[in-house]
Amino acid sequence: MYTIGIDLGGTNIVAAVVDSEYNIIAKAKTPTAMPRKPEEIFNDIAKISKQAMMNAGVTINDIQAIGLGTPGTVNKEGIIEYANNLGFDHIPAKDMLIERLGDVPVFIENDANCAALGEAYAGCGHGSKNFIAVTLGTGVGSGIILDGKIVSGVNNAGGECGHMVINVDGVPCTCGRRGCWEAYASATALINQTKAAMEEHPDSIMHELAMEEGKVSGRTAFDAMRRKDAAAIQVVEDYIKYVAAGITNLVNALQPEIVCVGGGICNEGETLLRPLRRYLESERYSVYSEVQTKLMKAELGNDAGVIGAAILNTVQ
Amino acid sequence: MYTIGIDLGGTNIVAAVVDSEYNIIAKAKTPTAMPRKPEEIFNDIAKISKQAMMNAGVTINDIQAIGLGTPGTVNKEGIIEYANNLGFDHIPAKDMLIERLGDVPVFIENDANCAALGEAYAGCGHGSKNFIAVTLGTGVGSGIILDGKIVSGVNNAGGECGHMVINVDGVPCTCGRRGCWEAYASATALINQTKAAMEEHPDSIMHELAMEEGKVSGRTAFDAMRRKDAAAIQVVEDYIKYVAAGITNLVNALQPEIVCVGGGICNEGETLLRPLRRYLESERYSVYSEVQTKLMKAELGNDAGVIGAAILNTVQ
Repeated sequence: MYTIGIDLGGTNIVAAVVDSEYNIIAKAKTPTAMPRKPEEIFNDIAKISKQAMMNAGVTINDIQAIGLGTPGTVNKEGIIEYANNLGFDHIPAKDMLIERLGDVPVFIENDANCAALGEAYAGCGHGSKNFIAVTLGTGVGSGIILDGKIVSGVNNAGGECGHMVINVDGVPCTCGRRGCWEAYASATALINQTKAAMEEHPDSIMHELAMEEGKVSGRTAFDAMRRKDAAAIQVVEDYIKYVAAGITNLVNALQPEIVCVGGGICNEGETLLRPLRRYLESERYSVYSEVQTKLMKAELGNDAGVIGAAILNTVQ
Repeated sequence: MYTIGIDLGGTNIVAAVVDSEYNIIAKAKTPTAMPRKPEEIFNDIAKISKQAMMNAGVTINDIQAIGLGTPGTVNKEGIIEYANNLGFDHIPAKDMLIERLGDVPVFIENDANCAALGEAYAGCGHGSKNFIAVTLGTGVGSGIILDGKIVSGVNNAGGECGHMVINVDGVPCTCGRRGCWEAYASATALINQTKAAMEEHPDSIMHELAMEEGKVSGRTAFDAMRRKDAAAIQVVEDYIKYVAAGITNLVNALQPEIVCVGGGICNEGETLLRPLRRYLESERYSVYSEVQTKLMKAELGNDAGVIGAAILNTVQ
């Protein structure tokens, strides 16, 4: 038997047929093409799900369950209560999927939670049941798995660790608070920090690198640091301090087996992870514990979401 | 059948016989009288446990389980790995209790986790299974109950939410980090903030109030605020902002059913809770959710610890 995992994103919709050992048998993809009506989006979800089944050489009778990862908040009845970037307001996603694909068990979860589940079970967690995934992207996404289950809280809105304040009265966050972890540790934040340092240091090599790349990116400061640029070294040191602050906070509160870090910035690999581990080792409250949280790099990339969605049925 | 709950504190040891409806049938108490050897402390724990049983008119044959709440980190084998203020280093607490009290099932947990469990099941939580207790005392203690179980993490050191940084590079914390929530939101922190404001404002009424009380306390700024002292109003506003920052962080990450606030500062009641709720309502990420975390005042006071210890056997 197989399951279908669907990752509904702001840019693309991906569907995958996944086997019981977390292997992706076949995938299909289509642009989300916003703005569109929810009905049209769900028509496309059904279309690419069928296409993925065809590519895998299976039919709906071979499908044990369908899992959907979506931005926003999903309630236990499978209704997407609210998803800002898709314009969703109380969309009966479960019913809309069953209507279009047949009467198969359907499970729907927040996309960051799906990605965390995917990494925990099929990625760097190798089946870990106490696992936090953090994605340093446009924002700071996160999902918490405890006792093998997604922590979604009393209202299915849990796991928003990017919106934990690490700097009271700090820089404004898109969520309305000031000083959120996301406002310091996302790729967007790093780019802003890089731009601010460039403005302060007109002679920094970062100007040259940004010119070559055509823009300031999450790589600009890291690349300039490797060329010993003093301003860039400071940007990277500060950025890593911010990332570490949030990770250490999560460790002190939850002491998971693994914290997994993903997102584009993670292409820096050990350049990022080594100093993060050093911060964690010196700052965690559990300095005397024999067992400690491991800090790891995400392994599944964009597939984490579809794989996590595909195994939602196993963690209910 | 009954259970015994024991609260081993830095100042006192309390034992209570508790029935299956969380009622304390009888209690006994003795000073911890540090510094002492672990053996002597455990002799006293056994002595007051027997005294509590005698007071309750029961014998060890009526006791279904014994629970112990202790400072520090306890592993699954019932060994207290480390408890700084008791000078404990790998103390086989479970075996020491069985040796002294008989072969009864023994469960040992961190004291803040026991207090959280007590409040969740028998206190303001009335059986809540998704519950965070925060105690604003000398430090900021906390315990997390999710899915009815204590979240103690991979190394039993979880739930240290007081040591989540809310201000990167902020004031030093006793744990070695800078900017921990505890360093801003504990009663100790409030007293420090009050003293700093008094120094800056020699004409503040806080000087008079502290003189009357013989010291600066957690009440000084609140009392002066009620007498419209401008410096005191600022102290209280800032303090509440710091307390709210940590609570909102926990809500955004875990969305529990209830966050319960305890400790001496909570005697301020709605003076504290009303503005905290206002912060939470405007700053939580889940503004659109129909169900929201409730903020409540702890109900059990010092009994939370013994009651929580007494019911540890029910949450394994």
